[in-house]
Amino acid sequence: MPDSILDDISHRRYNQLRGSWVLVSPHRTKRPWQGQQESPTKTTLPAYDPSCYLCPGNKRAQGDINPKYEKTFVFVNDYSAVKDEQEEYKPENKDGSLASRLLRAESVTGKCYVITFSPSHNLTLADLDVAHIVPIINTWTHLYTAHLSPSSPLAKLNKAVINGGHDESISKPNAQYRYMQIFENKGSAMGCSNPHPHGQVWTTTSLPEEPSMELEQLKKYRCEHGGANLLEEYAQLESTKKERVVFENDSFLALCPWWAVWPFEVMIVSKKHKRALVDFDDKEREELAEAIAEVTRRYDNLFETQFPYSMGLHQAPLEGTDEEIEASHFHIHFYPPLLRSATVRKFLVGYEMLAEPQRDITPEQAAARLRDCAGPLYRKALN
Amino acid sequence: MPDSILDDISHRRYNQLRGSWVLVSPHRTKRPWQGQQESPTKTTLPAYDPSCYLCPGNKRAQGDINPKYEKTFVFVNDYSAVKDEQEEYKPENKDGSLASRLLRAESVTGKCYVITFSPSHNLTLADLDVAHIVPIINTWTHLYTAHLSPSSPLAKLNKAVINGGHDESISKPNAQYRYMQIFENKGSAMGCSNPHPHGQVWTTTSLPEEPSMELEQLKKYRCEHGGANLLEEYAQLESTKKERVVFENDSFLALCPWWAVWPFEVMIVSKKHKRALVDFDDKEREELAEAIAEVTRRYDNLFETQFPYSMGLHQAPLEGTDEEIEASHFHIHFYPPLLRSATVRKFLVGYEMLAEPQRDITPEQAAARLRDCAGPLYRKALN
Ligand SMILES: O=P(O)(O)O[C@H]1O[C@H](CO)[C@@H](O)[C@H](O)[C@H]1O
Ligand SMILES: O=P(O)(O)O[C@H]1O[C@H](CO)[C@@H](O)[C@H](O)[C@H]1O
Repeated sequence: MPDSILDDISHRRYNQLRGSWVLVSPHRTKRPWQGQQESPTKTTLPAYDPSCYLCPGNKRAQGDINPKYEKTFVFVNDYSAVKDEQEEYKPENKDGSLASRLLRAESVTGKCYVITFSPSHNLTLADLDVAHIVPIINTWTHLYTAHLSPSSPLAKLNKAVINGGHDESISKPNAQYRYMQIFENKGSAMGCSNPHPHGQVWTTTSLPEEPSMELEQLKKYRCEHGGANLLEEYAQLESTKKERVVFENDSFLALCPWWAVWPFEVMIVSKKHKRALVDFDDKEREELAEAIAEVTRRYDNLFETQFPYSMGLHQAPLEGTDEEIEASHFHIHFYPPLLRSATVRKFLVGYEMLAEPQRDITPEQAAARLRDCAGPLYRKALN
Repeated sequence: MPDSILDDISHRRYNQLRGSWVLVSPHRTKRPWQGQQESPTKTTLPAYDPSCYLCPGNKRAQGDINPKYEKTFVFVNDYSAVKDEQEEYKPENKDGSLASRLLRAESVTGKCYVITFSPSHNLTLADLDVAHIVPIINTWTHLYTAHLSPSSPLAKLNKAVINGGHDESISKPNAQYRYMQIFENKGSAMGCSNPHPHGQVWTTTSLPEEPSMELEQLKKYRCEHGGANLLEEYAQLESTKKERVVFENDSFLALCPWWAVWPFEVMIVSKKHKRALVDFDDKEREELAEAIAEVTRRYDNLFETQFPYSMGLHQAPLEGTDEEIEASHFHIHFYPPLLRSATVRKFLVGYEMLAEPQRDITPEQAAARLRDCAGPLYRKALN
């Protein structure tokens, strides 16, 4: 491996995608751990839980009854962080005043959805095979398409709406939203309050911080390198180098990015330039499902536990300039907190919050360990 | 309160100090919580623990024996994230290559210290009075002074070195470092592995991300507003408005910033323009100690628990341009995770990691609750 001295010395790596730095201290894994232990998720859940508000046929918090869905099921979050209608906000501060300068706010409207990934209460993405992950990708694509701005070049693709499952609650929204964030919190360590496999989708009139920072970097790279796409070139480079690659098929690369912050952080990136979910054909959606299955299965195999993480899709904004949409490149981030075992996590606290993210093992070491975790799910035999 | 509609609608607030946004969803506290519960720290610790590596007279991980210190005690971290000497890093990638563009790294050297706040194993900042917090501030000041660049305008103040306690291991470093991050992780929820009251200091050749972002904003404000200091003006404004103020004395303001991310986030900010610890006189150091005591005591009173947090000081870099040093403004951030009770925290996961930080209660509501928590420490009677 080139630059192998980086396995031993403290250094910073630059995150080209965000435009930020991470401190890497490889020797630091040697310190003993006497702190908090996580409680791993119970793996002995029933396939159906009468008290779960996501299981088919059950009643939800606000009284609605779930359909007897067979694949996925989408509904509007009963406790949405943003709503599609609210009172108007007109700041009281006079322009040019100190308050108008220092106390800036803007109203945000939007819509929050929940998507169940399977009718079975006790399955996770790691348990599902490609045939069962494709409907989830289809549901995401349906949601994305339904919210696309009619003036977006992506809307002009005019693909048939792909239906993933029970998608009745997806409707054209009142307002044109700017961005759709699709994500999943898995495990109680990641603030997930219900083990039933599900993800969320928050759609807002604002372009949130993270995709906004990435878009700036993608546009800058394009402009500085004759129209080249940062992530397409990065995928090419990593696919040649191999040392950070976890899994690869024709269309996607799963890798521990050079600039990863979380110990076993993974990015699934499209090898060709794809702007958003709507750019994929059937084969690509299957290969994306395969990449998701490979990553989540290896995660669970690593410490033989239900591996907690937050994951999310980054892609073209629903509404944006042609330049923004062309510069976008589809990818998925996985941010898992575990560091040493099923019970010992990495805390991004103190120095990380006040100064700069810091990691212990190198991304190359993490990728090597995840490569070694291929094969069937460790708990398969128990089912 | 002006703009009281912000108590009801979803909105984003702009963080002038970092140049970033936070999503505020005030109605969201209504959702029920069925997720992970924190285990509060035991409050029945002994004053001396023979197995604690921070108690006076005890043996540390690498065999050193702690002195029988009476106030504070400083030593070099036995598992430092950065070291003052290491092998040199010369990147192998050729300039202009894809790898040199996308796989950027730089070596970081530095020094990591641990500071105990008290010889008593079972006390926290919330238990200490002003007379016992002043020595901690003195030790911070001593450390900062010892690492200041001789060419810094701050070094020219040439103040007498203030000794806080057992500071023997503070010595002029081999290299000139760029920044000193002083911080504390408190409680197991914040990755702290030893309840003995202590903080850390990481000093590096690099200017870390967070202070670097702040410095950019401070310089920009100065340049755009005729030399005015962002935080000095902000402190003035908040001290008039009052609705976000938690505590105030002659020199300092403790407030829940307009742009706070964590539910009960607090910033202690100097009311006059002070660049760093060395700018304070005796009275100011006492008033800083009072502000720290007021904040940490109110935190513990809020949910009648040992309130976990990460806190850290931001001030002028050890070495920098005159402009950087003049633009710097001393302040302390407190980032505490608890949201509803001693056991229910806010998770900054999923949407927060992938899209944008999101908070539930408003900073004005948080400040009002912390104002109501004045008075003696709830557990005083138990001691
Ligand atoms: O140095 P400690 O207390 O062992 O470790 C703690 O603080 C460090 C600095 O914030 C973090 O990097 C670690 O993840 C955390 O567990
Ligand atoms: O919406 P949930 O699953 O109740 O809540 C979880 O995910 C949200 C979005 O990432 C976070 O804001 C919450 O802090 C977290 O507990």
